[in-house]
Amino acid sequence: MARRPVLEFWYEFASSYSYLSAMRIEALAEGAGVDIRWRPFLLGPIFAAQGWTSSPFNLYPAKGRYMWRDLERQAAALGLPFRKPDPFPQNGLIAARVALYGADHPWGATFTKAVYRAEFGEGRAIADPGAVQAIVAHLGLDTDHVMKGAQGDANKTRLKALSEEARSRGIFGAPTFFTEDGEMFWGNDRLEQALAWAAGERPGRG
Amino acid sequence: MARRPVLEFWYEFASSYSYLSAMRIEALAEGAGVDIRWRPFLLGPIFAAQGWTSSPFNLYPAKGRYMWRDLERQAAALGLPFRKPDPFPQNGLIAARVALYGADHPWGATFTKAVYRAEFGEGRAIADPGAVQAIVAHLGLDTDHVMKGAQGDANKTRLKALSEEARSRGIFGAPTFFTEDGEMFWGNDRLEQALAWAAGERPGRG
Repeated sequence: MARRPVLEFWYEFASSYSYLSAMRIEALAEGAGVDIRWRPFLLGPIFAAQGWTSSPFNLYPAKGRYMWRDLERQAAALGLPFRKPDPFPQNGLIAARVALYGADHPWGATFTKAVYRAEFGEGRAIADPGAVQAIVAHLGLDTDHVMKGAQGDANKTRLKALSEEARSRGIFGAPTFFTEDGEMFWGNDRLEQALAWAAGERPGRG
Repeated sequence: MARRPVLEFWYEFASSYSYLSAMRIEALAEGAGVDIRWRPFLLGPIFAAQGWTSSPFNLYPAKGRYMWRDLERQAAALGLPFRKPDPFPQNGLIAARVALYGADHPWGATFTKAVYRAEFGEGRAIADPGAVQAIVAHLGLDTDHVMKGAQGDANKTRLKALSEEARSRGIFGAPTFFTEDGEMFWGNDRLEQALAWAAGERPGRG
């Protein structure tokens, strides 16, 4: 059997539209015959490098007001719960470390979805180590082992390197998807197109 | 016969994604049973008010590189020609004045599509009065009458007022769509949802 094509899913826990993609991507990928590589990263340093000290949805209030209404509509259309977290954005550093530590295990995706559901489905805070640890515990994982590994120097360094890779590959927002031939797709609205491209389809060729 | 619902289509001639919407909206609106109100406006003052001196696609180069590739893919998928105008953005002031002057006549939509096709389909400059006048002439209109009316004080004032209305209603980018009940949709990706909303459909209610 031929190896299935792979789509990289780059996400940041502060990103509202990444929530929608995280909840949708597995079923859509299965339908497209594509494997997903989960890539948690930090968008903060990329924003900071272009002079942004907060989420653009806070820096540009008209855009922010629209985004929350749009997210509410999109979640309703998808049958997903939605509640705005307060404060926004939530610092996703600890969650990203845990997600990356689990990225090579099946629980990495499960953990990621649980964080997003708590944050944007229930409006809960996810920034504290305690909040993240509670999610890890709820999944039945060995919390001491996971939190220690996630907060260890090797994993911290790996997350920094991955975030630098994101910047160097042209990522400027989340979610972002990369196909194996280097095609980049930005935004939850492009998830279907990214999967189709990964599966070999090309726009305009029927 | 009941009056058909109306969707407002707010567009700026410098906006690349507005090109895609301008070329798509009539057929989609007909299918949805919705009438379109064409609303050319100026995004420059809104951008300037938040400190942007150029297109965000120029101010944030990673986002700009991605946008041109995405636009190329989207145009290919839609079977539309695409060529990047140089320089970008093109100043759309004169074209917006003419489009607004024609907004109450059938030729307003035709003119708008002709400008976008020249600008993003063929990569031609559309900023000069001469370039705009050539498009007006090509449509078989009375160029002296149209250019004089478009550049007259009453029409200039109307365009300023419309652009101020855009800002006051929360518009921060283009294309933007408004339904009669005040629901706002931003971006070519939301055109189908905006038409469905205008036609009375609501997400998540089957």
